[in-house]
This record gives sequence, C-alpha cells and structure tokens, in this order.
Amino acid sequence: MKPFSSSFTAEEKDYFMQQAIAEAKKAYQLGEVPIGAVVVYQKNIISRGYNLRESTQDATTHAEMTAIKAACQSVESWRLEECQLFVTLEPCAMCSGAILLSRIEEVYYGAKDPKGGTVGSFMNLLEDDRMNHQAYVETGIREEECGLLLTNFFKELRQKKKEAKKAKNN
Amino acid sequence: MKPFSSSFTAEEKDYFMQQAIAEAKKAYQLGEVPIGAVVVYQKNIISRGYNLRESTQDATTHAEMTAIKAACQSVESWRLEECQLFVTLEPCAMCSGAILLSRIEEVYYGAKDPKGGTVGSFMNLLEDDRMNHQAYVETGIREEECGLLLTNFFKELRQKKKEAKKAKNN
Repeated sequence: MKPFSSSFTAEEKDYFMQQAIAEAKKAYQLGEVPIGAVVVYQKNIISRGYNLRESTQDATTHAEMTAIKAACQSVESWRLEECQLFVTLEPCAMCSGAILLSRIEEVYYGAKDPKGGTVGSFMNLLEDDRMNHQAYVETGIREEECGLLLTNFFKELRQKKKEAKKAKNN
Repeated sequence: MKPFSSSFTAEEKDYFMQQAIAEAKKAYQLGEVPIGAVVVYQKNIISRGYNLRESTQDATTHAEMTAIKAACQSVESWRLEECQLFVTLEPCAMCSGAILLSRIEEVYYGAKDPKGGTVGSFMNLLEDDRMNHQAYVETGIREEECGLLLTNFFKELRQKKKEAKKAKNN
C-alpha cells in the first residue's frame, strides 16, 4: 500500500535534509561528487551514507546504497518498511530500485537530476503502480543548497583540470 | 554508444549461462530464491554472485549486485565497459541501474520476470535512449532451466509451509 502522507513536520524534514547535506560534504572533502543520504526510523537517524564511487572504484557505492545497506544491518532485516530516506539528489534507477526492494516508505530529496533521476525527472520508479511497492515522495527540500554543492564541485573540478592542463603546457 | 552485436557464439552463451545457473543452485541450497550471475571479461569469468537476501538480511544483495561489485574489485575500476553479464532471471530496476552505472556492455538473461523485470517485461531500462548508457540485451538463454529452478523452489517452499502448518495443528 502506498503511504499518502508524510511522517514529518517541515522542521523535521529540514533537519534530516541538513544531515544528508552533512554527508554530501564528506564526499566533497574526498573529491567525490557530493551526494549524501540518511535513513530515519522513528524520527532517529539509523544510518548514513555518501557517494564513494571513486574511492572504492565500485559503481554501486552511491550514498543511498550505503545508507540502505547500513540501515538493513541496523534493524537486522532487509525490510525497512517503517523507514524514511533523505537524500540530497534525486535517486537514479539503481537507488530507486533499492528503495523499492527494501520497502522504504517515504523518500525526500533535495535537487533534481535531469540526466539520471528516476523519481520524477524522466520517469518515476517510486510512484509506478506496476511495481510491487511504491513510496511517498517529496522533493525540493533545501533544493538550492543541495544543487549548489554539486554546481560548485563541478566548477572547481573544471578549474582544476584547466590549471593542470596549463601547468602541463608550460 | 550502444553495442549492436554479441561478443559470443551460441556455445559460449550457453556455457556462461550454465555457470550462472551453477551460482543460482548455490542460492537454492541455502534456501534463497535461486538466481545466479557471472560477469565475463575477454571470455573469462571474472566474478560470480547469487542471491543472498535472506542470509544477509540486506535487500540489495541480488546475484547481479554481488557479481558487479566483485567485478569492479577484480578490474580495480568502477567501469566495466568491456564486460558482459549473464544472469538467470531478468534484472530488476536496482540491478538494471547498476548495469548502466558500471557501463556493462552486454546482458544475457534466462527467464523473464513479469512482476519485477525491467529489461523487457514492463519497461526496458537497458535499452532506453534517455539513459546515459545502453546495453546490448539477449534473452531466453536456457530460459526453461532458469525458470524451472524458480518454479521448483517456490513449489517446495509452499509444500514446506503446508507441512509446517499441518505439524503445528497436530
């Protein structure tokens, strides 16, 4: 059954998204694309994750995946039926699939991902009645802050590449 | 760029699917839904995986995910661009997403999954031009054998449940 309302007040949503942003900043520090996530159960954060693709050289180590795996460990079950996920960027197909498989009930994300997002951008896997599970979805929480983290990261990356090229040519 | 042809002869495809089936049987032995996968690079198997959801109590431990993670470790890169995946059952959204993210070039699966399959059954994430990667897909390799493994598993499971209920009532 698809849940039709949020478990949180506006303040709570804002707080948990700030926590996801704190995770994204850890990725930033490591030179990873800054995306962060937390899983919440009974208004407590039970797991955290941030993108680690380059550090691990593993295509599956997205913020949501790490947080979901750790949440399963925390509750000792693959069923996260009464859990909610907060993530700074719209989930991709892999992470949307993991959300459905783990039965997470509510998903809150910050910035949209027009290129790879599958929760509203060019498809919506979490609200598709053909799937065996659906999630309640809310978007746009601290959207600008979540988006700016990514914009700044890629701006810096381009700048660094430019400088490296310049140094090489001198 | 989407690859438009297979790297394998019919005999090779059959061989690698047999190897995926051998993985599925390991899951069966553990009482897990029998699904198995292998990742191939230059005609050699570089990783294997089978469904371990119940044993790990982790919703993300599908056969494909384990095989993809191990393949990334094997080639020390999140890019599996010249790799192929063989899996006994049509991949779900999570595994399809992981295939796209790791840039696996070719995907071969045995049985269709009308309920959760996202590679032809009710959507096709691997051949969707809106995604930043596409894969060459072939289906139906040892389809009956792959399907029978699942049918028998669920038949046995129902039988066991029936017997347990009977024993409880006596």
